[in-house]
Amino acid sequence: MGCHQLTSVHDVSNARRVVERARAIFVGGGNTFRLLKGLYDADLLRVIRERVSAGLPYIGSSAGSIVACPSLRTTKDMPVVQPPSFEALGLVGFQISPHYLDPDPSSTHMGETQEERIRQFLEENGETVVGLREGSMLRVEGGTVTLKGSTAARIFRSREEPVEVSPTANLDELLGQQFRYAEATT
Amino acid sequence: MGCHQLTSVHDVSNARRVVERARAIFVGGGNTFRLLKGLYDADLLRVIRERVSAGLPYIGSSAGSIVACPSLRTTKDMPVVQPPSFEALGLVGFQISPHYLDPDPSSTHMGETQEERIRQFLEENGETVVGLREGSMLRVEGGTVTLKGSTAARIFRSREEPVEVSPTANLDELLGQQFRYAEATT
Repeated sequence: MGCHQLTSVHDVSNARRVVERARAIFVGGGNTFRLLKGLYDADLLRVIRERVSAGLPYIGSSAGSIVACPSLRTTKDMPVVQPPSFEALGLVGFQISPHYLDPDPSSTHMGETQEERIRQFLEENGETVVGLREGSMLRVEGGTVTLKGSTAARIFRSREEPVEVSPTANLDELLGQQFRYAEATT
Repeated sequence: MGCHQLTSVHDVSNARRVVERARAIFVGGGNTFRLLKGLYDADLLRVIRERVSAGLPYIGSSAGSIVACPSLRTTKDMPVVQPPSFEALGLVGFQISPHYLDPDPSSTHMGETQEERIRQFLEENGETVVGLREGSMLRVEGGTVTLKGSTAARIFRSREEPVEVSPTANLDELLGQQFRYAEATT
């Protein structure tokens, strides 16, 4: 975090006030259900949406990237606690599926692959899903989404075959019309 | 299912009636969130608890074994739909974590292992968790739990180190006092 002053909302009595005064928000990883429940318990969803909508930079990694999406429905985490709702910040209109793992053909594991899980998601939901492999990120700025980093991403859309996109690709066409609050960060 | 007549609750107009008349219940795998939501939507939880409590055999595999537990909080499935509650059938008082995978020391994957996920569960919940590897099952009958099959299971308890148990082990001591409805099936 370099020379910037970092205040953790875990350490303050008034988390909303910290968000109101922050010059950027970073939300890291952990259990997505616990994270989203924490955001509800601290009543932070609306203030984060308002501030990001007004231009505040938001950086999310792992679970922190999922809660920027419309819901937590693409998490792979264990539902160890029950948040009041699966609805998340909705800073963007698409879903991220981080730590994306390609199917291992040699596996004898009987559980579903991440691709199969995302296909289950698309049977129930309309949002496009970005499978983000380790080493990559999405930059959303000025109404534009760009894939950054060292690995390709896999994009899943309802009733379409998945497509692979390479780093530095502009994803506006694939994720078009899927902005919400973040579209105001021009 | 051999020579027995099998009626799927998906194919009937009155699913409750099928459960009321069944001589056994089998619940298979799939997405646990979708399964539990389906049980709520069809209003089947109470009638299944009542019948199993009165001695009806219940067989669950994968997601069907998780919904026999107090909640779905040990599923690895993607939360593609939101059930009204995470509370499940509670036929037993412990949690099952099926398709249990041991940590792979050579993995570069940054996501949590199944053991780490179960430890997160235990930070938030009190129920003992049985990590069931492929090829094994738990038999709960007459107030007794036995591990069957070809692989060992890993038992996780709050504030204790996990323990390994071998097939044919009696788990009453480890899972003791953790029965609910199933204890009546003597």
